[in-house]
Amino acid sequence: MNKKMIVYILGKMMGVEGLLLLIPALVSLIYHEKSVISFLIVAAVLLVIYMVFGRKLPASKQIYGKEGFVIVGLAWILWSAFGALPFVISGSIPYYIDALFETISGFTTTGSTILADIEALPMGISFWRSFTHWIGGMGVLVFVMMITSLDDENAMPLMRAEVPGPEADKLVPKARHTARLLYGMYFVLTAAEVVFLLFGGMNLYDALLHAFSTAGTGGFSNRAASVSFYDSAYIDGVITVFMILFGINFNLYFFILLKDWKSILKNEELWAYLGIVGVSIAIITGNILKIYGTVAHAFRYASFQVGSIITTTGFATADYDQWPELSKSILLALMFVGACAGSTGGGIKVSRLLIIVKSIRREVRKMLHPNAVTIIKVNGKKIGQDTLKNVNLYLTCYIIIMIVSILLVSIDNFDFATTFSGVLTTMSNVGPGISKVGPVMNFHPFSTVSKLVFCFDMLIGRLEIFPYLLLLSPELWRRRF
Amino acid sequence: MNKKMIVYILGKMMGVEGLLLLIPALVSLIYHEKSVISFLIVAAVLLVIYMVFGRKLPASKQIYGKEGFVIVGLAWILWSAFGALPFVISGSIPYYIDALFETISGFTTTGSTILADIEALPMGISFWRSFTHWIGGMGVLVFVMMITSLDDENAMPLMRAEVPGPEADKLVPKARHTARLLYGMYFVLTAAEVVFLLFGGMNLYDALLHAFSTAGTGGFSNRAASVSFYDSAYIDGVITVFMILFGINFNLYFFILLKDWKSILKNEELWAYLGIVGVSIAIITGNILKIYGTVAHAFRYASFQVGSIITTTGFATADYDQWPELSKSILLALMFVGACAGSTGGGIKVSRLLIIVKSIRREVRKMLHPNAVTIIKVNGKKIGQDTLKNVNLYLTCYIIIMIVSILLVSIDNFDFATTFSGVLTTMSNVGPGISKVGPVMNFHPFSTVSKLVFCFDMLIGRLEIFPYLLLLSPELWRRRF
Repeated sequence: MNKKMIVYILGKMMGVEGLLLLIPALVSLIYHEKSVISFLIVAAVLLVIYMVFGRKLPASKQIYGKEGFVIVGLAWILWSAFGALPFVISGSIPYYIDALFETISGFTTTGSTILADIEALPMGISFWRSFTHWIGGMGVLVFVMMITSLDDENAMPLMRAEVPGPEADKLVPKARHTARLLYGMYFVLTAAEVVFLLFGGMNLYDALLHAFSTAGTGGFSNRAASVSFYDSAYIDGVITVFMILFGINFNLYFFILLKDWKSILKNEELWAYLGIVGVSIAIITGNILKIYGTVAHAFRYASFQVGSIITTTGFATADYDQWPELSKSILLALMFVGACAGSTGGGIKVSRLLIIVKSIRREVRKMLHPNAVTIIKVNGKKIGQDTLKNVNLYLTCYIIIMIVSILLVSIDNFDFATTFSGVLTTMSNVGPGISKVGPVMNFHPFSTVSKLVFCFDMLIGRLEIFPYLLLLSPELWRRRF
Repeated sequence: MNKKMIVYILGKMMGVEGLLLLIPALVSLIYHEKSVISFLIVAAVLLVIYMVFGRKLPASKQIYGKEGFVIVGLAWILWSAFGALPFVISGSIPYYIDALFETISGFTTTGSTILADIEALPMGISFWRSFTHWIGGMGVLVFVMMITSLDDENAMPLMRAEVPGPEADKLVPKARHTARLLYGMYFVLTAAEVVFLLFGGMNLYDALLHAFSTAGTGGFSNRAASVSFYDSAYIDGVITVFMILFGINFNLYFFILLKDWKSILKNEELWAYLGIVGVSIAIITGNILKIYGTVAHAFRYASFQVGSIITTTGFATADYDQWPELSKSILLALMFVGACAGSTGGGIKVSRLLIIVKSIRREVRKMLHPNAVTIIKVNGKKIGQDTLKNVNLYLTCYIIIMIVSILLVSIDNFDFATTFSGVLTTMSNVGPGISKVGPVMNFHPFSTVSKLVFCFDMLIGRLEIFPYLLLLSPELWRRRF
């Protein structure tokens, strides 16, 4: 284990967070808010940490997969731990665990909140809250990679550990250039959404915050009523489309840049994702027709909610907890499925589902023809034994962590739907669940233990389990480190 | 596919069911009930089917794994389809789908019921209902194997397809002798329970029916209040102990006969199972202490319910739906886990859980030492790649079938806890769930579609998915068959 390199990269990362905090500080300054001081204090502390640990490159620079997991696992905890401080110092969220919950919910792009009165937040604080979604969506390490100079062989373990999905690819030969390209496309799409929202009459501040939330598939809003505050079919439509766009693998946007239409057409994950979205919208539209009267109305609310949940954004334009059970079950199933690999969305990802379904089909075929040699292909690419094993391992760990989390949270004695959907929505980085964590409720009533369980679930959901599996392994700590 | 052999074995099986129906017919006769006629009619039909299909051994006798799955899958459907007829003909359950649900619930040892007034059933009908548990517990094909003469190589595919758990072993070199030995031990343990129950003041009829239910880990009772009817700490204790005994791998009872104590001591599954039972009882006893006042009372109800749920029996001495959420969540988790492989219990089985946990530990170790060669051992036996793959496949299919079932059942618009626990309890062959399918409720209010979904879930739960996966595969039917 290259301990020095781990400390060096983490030190660098702290510096980057310090710089990022200057942006909400500027927002606070513009609105003449006292909270500017809280941002500056934390930024100063982070820059000092950077000066001490993040400046001198160690002699031995080589890191491998395990260091990648350890760095990513610790980096997200540290960014959240420090990112929570402005909430506490400014007095917006006085209790640290609540602030930590909110920050982890932000960086992991979950969007669950412990705040009962969101609109009481200062503008700078609310900006920071939504800005964490934007950074967390594409990845805090991918961000750091973009602006620092890491060798390619040292950058890839980090990239693999942070980018969601069963396999991480480089778009271009160099990891740093891939990171820049990803953030570039991310920036352009976000900016496009801001323009569309301004066009719908939203003010710049609201448009920025909602674009951050959509881009990161987070779900925080500066409005207590979430997107339904604007009560505009146009805004609902714009956000629906952008949510669905941000749930697509970013590699496909790169293919558009390359005019490689063939790769897009044969991308099974894209078509499966759009198929699931289409079928879900159709069924829910029919199911809630009675409530909304017209097909157009039912379609508007169904499509927004399906887009919001499958991409794991978590915005709400309707209290879907009042919808019939079939619609609620579909939304819960979508939480589990999640968006495409390589997007900013959470859940187990459509590509993993494809791999699972195809491997089941292969095993059935093997029962019929025991000697047949069959390979699994997804998006035209052969799925190796290792990837298949990792997908199974991922799903298994997911279920076990889910069961243990439900047991721990049930100590709080909320009804089963609340406990179950609370765990599912945090693990899948969605945001709201059903019942007492429904779209018009919040996570404040839970005990500190449950909140910490949810914090863990959000982190393992965003980083897809393995970094924390490694960090929690006693063997890692038994070794001379 | 050896079609002739499939028809031959299924024909034989129908004959055996016809013979078995004479037992409840005798009970009806003893109690001077008209329902004797309904048993005799169905028995006659089944014997005719046997005469036509089950008498002439085909020239080519060889069958393989796939035929084993097809036979087992179809056999359970046919036994249930015919076994439901006496309920309909006698007028006890007039609607056929309800009777089918009740019979599948019986054979699969689930114990979920659609009957609101159990005590209104004629004695012979109620006897048949509980007797299906006893036959289904050890296996309908294992039963047929015991009394017919199949070659060993033709018997093993059937045994493997029906005996629960990741791997099926023969106790003695011949499959038929293994079947006799299994039913022999099963018979002795059941008889022992009858004696203990008679000693507690139960009448012979009630003692037989409750022993059938316990032995098969089914859960049907001839009393509306289930075991709480007797309101006896002694009877609760006897049934608790026997439930836990029937949840243990029957191979271990064979080791007792062989005085092979070492094999028992090093059986990890046994210790894990007893450990889970012990910890669950301890936590629930603490959790429900307030309700029951004394530790002794709380322990009595907690231990009965833990034993009942983890073994997937489903008897109730308390309305645990009124217990705190932690206790309910533990019971739901136990439904998922289930009993030991090679027992009469359902669920995913403790040994599969052990394999899963050990494979996760191995993968974490591999991240730390990429070149280390590590093997997984359970009960001192090496777990091969194929077994591990099957365990993963099993769990994956389990989750997918669960999600699809929840979606279908949610059309009935019951609350989420009802829908979720209804699917879980039928898939794991437990019986009751929580909320509207809690221990004092029944499955009658569901629609026909939901009842058929539950029927499917009970069958795939009992036969561990693969037979029905194969039967549902279009490729099986596309082939010249």
